[in-house]
Amino acid sequence: MNPVYIAGAGMTKFGRSEWSLMKLASVASLEALHHADLGEFPVDGVVVANMGAARVNKQTALGSALVDQLALYPATAESVENGPASGASAFKVGVQAIGSGMADVVLVTGVERMRVVNGLEGTDFVASLSHPEAEYIYGVTLPSLAGMFARLYMDRYGVERKHLAMVAIKNHENGTKNPYAHITQTVTMEGILTLPEAAVNNPPIAEPLHLFDCCPVSDGAAAVVLVSEAVAKKLPGPKVRVAGIGQATDTHTVHEREDPTDLKSVRLASEKAFSMAGLTPADVDVAELHDAFTILEIAESEAAGFFPKGEGHKALERGETKLGGKLPINPSGGLKAKGHPVGATGVAQLVELTWQLRGEAEGRQVEGAKVAYACNFGGFGNNVVATVLQREES
Amino acid sequence: MNPVYIAGAGMTKFGRSEWSLMKLASVASLEALHHADLGEFPVDGVVVANMGAARVNKQTALGSALVDQLALYPATAESVENGPASGASAFKVGVQAIGSGMADVVLVTGVERMRVVNGLEGTDFVASLSHPEAEYIYGVTLPSLAGMFARLYMDRYGVERKHLAMVAIKNHENGTKNPYAHITQTVTMEGILTLPEAAVNNPPIAEPLHLFDCCPVSDGAAAVVLVSEAVAKKLPGPKVRVAGIGQATDTHTVHEREDPTDLKSVRLASEKAFSMAGLTPADVDVAELHDAFTILEIAESEAAGFFPKGEGHKALERGETKLGGKLPINPSGGLKAKGHPVGATGVAQLVELTWQLRGEAEGRQVEGAKVAYACNFGGFGNNVVATVLQREES
Repeated sequence: MNPVYIAGAGMTKFGRSEWSLMKLASVASLEALHHADLGEFPVDGVVVANMGAARVNKQTALGSALVDQLALYPATAESVENGPASGASAFKVGVQAIGSGMADVVLVTGVERMRVVNGLEGTDFVASLSHPEAEYIYGVTLPSLAGMFARLYMDRYGVERKHLAMVAIKNHENGTKNPYAHITQTVTMEGILTLPEAAVNNPPIAEPLHLFDCCPVSDGAAAVVLVSEAVAKKLPGPKVRVAGIGQATDTHTVHEREDPTDLKSVRLASEKAFSMAGLTPADVDVAELHDAFTILEIAESEAAGFFPKGEGHKALERGETKLGGKLPINPSGGLKAKGHPVGATGVAQLVELTWQLRGEAEGRQVEGAKVAYACNFGGFGNNVVATVLQREES
Repeated sequence: MNPVYIAGAGMTKFGRSEWSLMKLASVASLEALHHADLGEFPVDGVVVANMGAARVNKQTALGSALVDQLALYPATAESVENGPASGASAFKVGVQAIGSGMADVVLVTGVERMRVVNGLEGTDFVASLSHPEAEYIYGVTLPSLAGMFARLYMDRYGVERKHLAMVAIKNHENGTKNPYAHITQTVTMEGILTLPEAAVNNPPIAEPLHLFDCCPVSDGAAAVVLVSEAVAKKLPGPKVRVAGIGQATDTHTVHEREDPTDLKSVRLASEKAFSMAGLTPADVDVAELHDAFTILEIAESEAAGFFPKGEGHKALERGETKLGGKLPINPSGGLKAKGHPVGATGVAQLVELTWQLRGEAEGRQVEGAKVAYACNFGGFGNNVVATVLQREES
């Protein structure tokens, strides 16, 4: 494959927004284009990541609409959907457009405006990715799947509710350092777990998961500009190369998996991404994991190969995944604090990592980061995309 | 780009279906996989083309679901949406996956199950691709845009209602020869235009377009199997190469275009596709055009370069676009008779052309066809994908 670089990255603040879907997408795209400083080079293609605008916003053909908003005609355009991994899937599609030689500059923009629906409708909308006959009709929701997964994980590996809380505490702390984060308040072990009022402030959602184990529902957009090597050579700024991308699917329903605690798709996707990059998990300086639920950060940190199975919560307890630790995870605040506008999330992970590799993540910079890893978790682990980025010295 | 071949093609009958969305997609996919006869080669990736399942069928993440239905794990999977051009966009994404060297075998499946909603809701659903602030809120629908476009075309180029009827008559006639077509009845000039009862049988939809100028609303699925050169060499059957793909966008709203009768996106997309293929419109033996409305077949036949501007209706009148004519257009029956399950349409065009190039289009075969062209028309001409296929002699 022809080499592909990220030349620019930008996003909107995540949270509740009064902006329209297209304004969110446009603002993030313009931030990324400004960051890339393309000069004479035109945008050849636009890939929009989005999960539910057809239903939630009654709008389709977002790719064409974004081309129009930014007057990028006759650039190619389409939308890509892969549930909560829509962002990384769209990124992969953009990478392949350049990798095939059919394009030199591709804008990948993830967007979701999902706070317009109420909580129940929102939960139902996200559950539309579950199996229609084997899960959805029985009322399975994503929090319920995560709750069952967490219970199994706790039983088998000695994970306790305090470890789940540690993920929340760390990521909320990181979120306070990210001006784009949805939630910018810190939480404490006492406030969400041990004090009597914790029972009220942090009510159960799907036991053993409580409110602060779940990411918020957010509006927002994030964008990156991908370029070919020929273009990258002529642009200013540090060079961030897409070193590896891996993707793997698993059974649609969790109960069909031989070991439901084995995130096989995370494992396979990561192995492929590292193999393509010629790197190993030990080379990674900073990672963004898909902590839609706190338990997922722990489980993914193991399946990606950073820690042995069942040891992720111990590394967390030792502080290794904090900013300043051996492997900072979710310096952006993760989905937990930064927010989770579904279609935007996978792109936003790569925006944060691009900034980290360029040394531009003010206030939460992982010093000297050269290799970064992202895990975008689709379905309940039935379609995962792993990406490895690497800073190249010019 | 690495060369890409179509190794197999299959589809369901279009029309009203009792099958679920996933059954439609699975059956078409299995037909295409059976046709490809892959033997030992695994499917590396799945791309699903779909416009509105999130809204119409309350289902998302169709790519992952299809992988599960066919037990293709850990194949990569995502859905691609580009309004009525979703099919060709998904095809392009599959081509680039192989073209980049990241995959050797990719299944591209287009599917739509849209007859579950009533007519008004269906029209509203398709209109969700129009500009939210400049078109949609004023009640613009696709038939209304096509009506205004037809009126302009008639005024400027001498196209008459009888020419529009000729498209319908030809495509209905072709449809009777296609066992997969939604509509398999012939129509006559008298029946839809000149007899007194035509006023009742063929009522106006958006003047000057009447019922028989509009494609039906259909359920259905279509699939093709794409392979790399290394795989193509080891498979039986004739070799159909993806010689060229071009795509171009235009302003979202039609009224912003300098000349609203100029289908610039069709023109640019076709020029790119022919240039990539090293061929010209004169080399084409058979074409599938996007006749969602009869006027579009005439206009696209000019913009694609087959006839001079304003002359398409004359070529039609001379019978050049009939089966047996100089350039048969829509031997499948087109959207007009074959049907238009939106996400499936672009793939179905390529299914028909693959069959034609392999000499397998029984009853409607264009003898000796070597080069084929498809135009998949997204939005109201604001995002068009043109594809050129070529049969290679082994």
